[in-house]
Parts: sequence; structure tokens; C-alpha cells
Amino acid sequence: MPPSPARNRRADAQRSRAAILDAAVRLLNANPDAGVEAIATAAGVTRQTVYAHFPSRERLLAAVVDHVTEEAIEAMDAADLDTGPAADALLRLVEAGLRTVWRYPVLLRAIASLPVSPETDHERHAPVADRVGRVIRRGQGTGEFDAGLSAGWLVAVTVKLGHAASEEVEAGGMSYEDATKALRTSLLRVLGTP
Amino acid sequence: MPPSPARNRRADAQRSRAAILDAAVRLLNANPDAGVEAIATAAGVTRQTVYAHFPSRERLLAAVVDHVTEEAIEAMDAADLDTGPAADALLRLVEAGLRTVWRYPVLLRAIASLPVSPETDHERHAPVADRVGRVIRRGQGTGEFDAGLSAGWLVAVTVKLGHAASEEVEAGGMSYEDATKALRTSLLRVLGTP
Repeated sequence: MPPSPARNRRADAQRSRAAILDAAVRLLNANPDAGVEAIATAAGVTRQTVYAHFPSRERLLAAVVDHVTEEAIEAMDAADLDTGPAADALLRLVEAGLRTVWRYPVLLRAIASLPVSPETDHERHAPVADRVGRVIRRGQGTGEFDAGLSAGWLVAVTVKLGHAASEEVEAGGMSYEDATKALRTSLLRVLGTP
Repeated sequence: MPPSPARNRRADAQRSRAAILDAAVRLLNANPDAGVEAIATAAGVTRQTVYAHFPSRERLLAAVVDHVTEEAIEAMDAADLDTGPAADALLRLVEAGLRTVWRYPVLLRAIASLPVSPETDHERHAPVADRVGRVIRRGQGTGEFDAGLSAGWLVAVTVKLGHAASEEVEAGGMSYEDATKALRTSLLRVLGTP
């Protein structure tokens, strides 16, 4: 049976949405003021199609943030979180996240200055926090990490240390290598690894 | 020589500015949507006087943030930062800051969701970072803290851990006491105190 016209239209819509988001990530990372016109051209669609998917610039930017977050989550999931020593898994996880973040410095700097409610920020970090929590509970279960600090607190600390590394690099205070090294040392100390 | 009329006017303006800020902090912490009219009434001035000092709500809110920041800095400076073991001084400093933050939970929650550029955020934290840095360099100088991590990185980590504690309490995940205890333990571990 050939695919129905409705199914074709849905597949088309999904393809153009993905093309718009890819183009938006690329263009906004080169110039945070890139306009809808330029993004439409780069995606090979019309302005109208962009607006059909994202009725406002705010909605487009929110989708861009979700898109980059998904990329970071995929990189984390590719890092074998359930295998080997928990400390190594946690460092792989955090470094996978940072590599994604550091791929889009200009874009993420622009996003960081947008208004965001604590709830939205919390929701965006939830998939990261889930994965960090899984590794931390595994490490506490095997006795690799000191259980004196709660898993919830250690998740918050891990996310904050990741932000600290990212911001130090962005502000020009540290190189990628130094920030990653400082993050590794700090995380292992807080986790109470022997 | 009696004070000049110009000097009297300046003193009056300073007093009404201070009264407006005190009223704004109090009212906005009770209700983040409190209006200029209510703030003017509580400060004993007219709406026109509020607008003369703060031409927009954004300007008033920015001044409110500065006002609370100054209060936190004063509390930190009262904590004897240059005396005794550096680890104790750092914990006193961080806890003085958190006590101020926790005095205004509703207000700070409202402020946290306002747009802020990374530069403004950095500027606002600069007086805190200065003081944290002073204590950390003292502790590294005396060998109380491990010098393997740079003072700049440890300052960033200290500020982030303070935020983590503040956010965990705000989100209802931890009590003040538990968050303060977790923060103390984590800070001492990262600093590499024996």
C-alpha cells in the first residue's frame, strides 16, 4: 500500500522542521542576531514555513535550546553510563555534555542571557539530572562514592560544577583542558572517591 | 554655617531613595507583583517621587537586586574573613550570604526569572567573588587548602555550591540545615582540607 497523502505531508513537515532547527543552530552560533529570513534560506524553506512551525522568534529559540539539549543527551547516552567504575562513567557523562556545549559557544552565550523561569530551567536540566543521578546512585551503591552526601545534592553539585567549567571557558578564564581537569579533580573530591 | 538648601535637597533625595528601596524589598518579597503605587505608599512618598528615582519598573528591580546584594556583602564583611582558619572564614562567609538570600525567598525567586546578561550577572557577583578569593588565597598561602586547583576555579566553585544550596532549599528538596551541612562538607572536600 502506498503511503497516504496525509502521511507524506507529516513526513515533509518533520523534515522541514528538522532542517529549520539545524539551520537555526548553525546560523545563530555564527551570529546570535541572525534573522528568520536567513534561517529560512539556509534551511531551503520559505519564511512562511518557518513561521508555520515557530510562530515567534522566542518559540524558535526555545526549540533551538531543546535541540541542543537533545544533542547533549544523545552524547551522554553514547558514553556507556552503566559500565565500569561509576567515577569514570560520571566523568565521561559530564565531558560528553561539555563537548556539546562547547560546540556552540556563541549560541549558548546568547541563550544564557534570555529570561527563563526556574521551572523551565529545571525541566531542561531534568534529563541530564536523571542520568547523573543514575550514575551517582550506582557509585553510592557499590561504595565507590561516599554515601555521606545525598544523591540529590550530588546531582545538583555535578550540574553546577559543569556550569562552572563551561562559564570559566566562556569568560576566557580557563582553557578547555584546564577547565576539564579542574572539573574532574573537584568532582572526584566532592564524591569522596578514595 | 547652616547646611545649604541644595545639600538639604540632596539629603532628602537620598532618604526617599532609601525608603523606596526598603519598601520595595519588603513588598516585593510578600508579593512579587506589588505595584509602584503600593511601594510609594509604604515608603511615604508619591508615585512621582518613585518614578523620579526609578523611571521604570526594570530600573527599580535592578536597584532592589543591588540593595539586597549590598546587604549580603555587609553580612559577609561582618564575618571576620581575615581571622582564624581560612576554612572556617570561608564557611562563615558563605553562610552569611545564604542567610541574606534566605531572608527574601519570594523576592529572589522573582528576580531569578528576570533576563540578565552574563556580564551583569558577573558584575553583581564580583564583590562576593572578591571576598571569596581573598579567603581562598589566604588558605592556599598557609597550606590549609590544597593548591592543586587554582584560586579562580575555587572561587567559581564556591559561588556555584552556594547557588546549589540556595536552589535546593527553594525547590523544597532540602531544609536550610541539611543544605548548609551538605554545602560545608562539599566545600571542605573540594578545597582539599586535611
